[in-house]
Amino acid sequence: MIEKKVRLGNLFAFYGQLLTEKQQEILRLYYIHDLSLGEISENLGISRQAVYDTLKRTQKLLEEYEKKLGLLNKFMKTRYKINELVVSIDDLIEDVNKNFDKVYVLEKMKNLKNMTLEILDESS
Amino acid sequence: MIEKKVRLGNLFAFYGQLLTEKQQEILRLYYIHDLSLGEISENLGISRQAVYDTLKRTQKLLEEYEKKLGLLNKFMKTRYKINELVVSIDDLIEDVNKNFDKVYVLEKMKNLKNMTLEILDESS
Repeated sequence: MIEKKVRLGNLFAFYGQLLTEKQQEILRLYYIHDLSLGEISENLGISRQAVYDTLKRTQKLLEEYEKKLGLLNKFMKTRYKINELVVSIDDLIEDVNKNFDKVYVLEKMKNLKNMTLEILDESS
Repeated sequence: MIEKKVRLGNLFAFYGQLLTEKQQEILRLYYIHDLSLGEISENLGISRQAVYDTLKRTQKLLEEYEKKLGLLNKFMKTRYKINELVVSIDDLIEDVNKNFDKVYVLEKMKNLKNMTLEILDESS
């Protein structure tokens, strides 16, 4: 359930601007400020059922946007690859500290470059 | 004019799926297959004016999506930063070839890591 909320919070970050002002207000309180349905209902002076309905309806909308545009998925993949790059750089720093061999370091650096070019290629 | 067409082609790549099937068909021929208005009109058996109107209307729609979501802008910035990273790795490879100094190489590699972390940070 928490995973689902995180995913929907991410989708809201990507596509929230495509929702109405009122929907955005409710989703902000739910996904960003982490209020409960009851608290949102009290805060905005609307029924708990209205809050629930909005959350349900917008979940569907946000998932539809993601199905069409797939931007969250794309960003996640890019972030994953950049994370791998950071790990590779860390490894290389350790390698250089332990075994400072020119041919080896150069080869590793060319690998780094290829990894980076791959990210560039995939993000286009 | 070419710059504008490239920009709109990019916006189409990002947000095209939010347009209708018919609009997408026309925009694909214009932005991807690079057909003229006359050629599109002939191909689809619709008037040149209808093609023109669709291009105008969708330009506005695509720009509105970008104004709301700003995803093209975000991607362009990330691509620019990753490009800078590639240049930095290239520079470092040249440095290592010329002047293979451990302290220097390590410092440069830490810079690479920071650049990469910055990209990660901004893409979140």
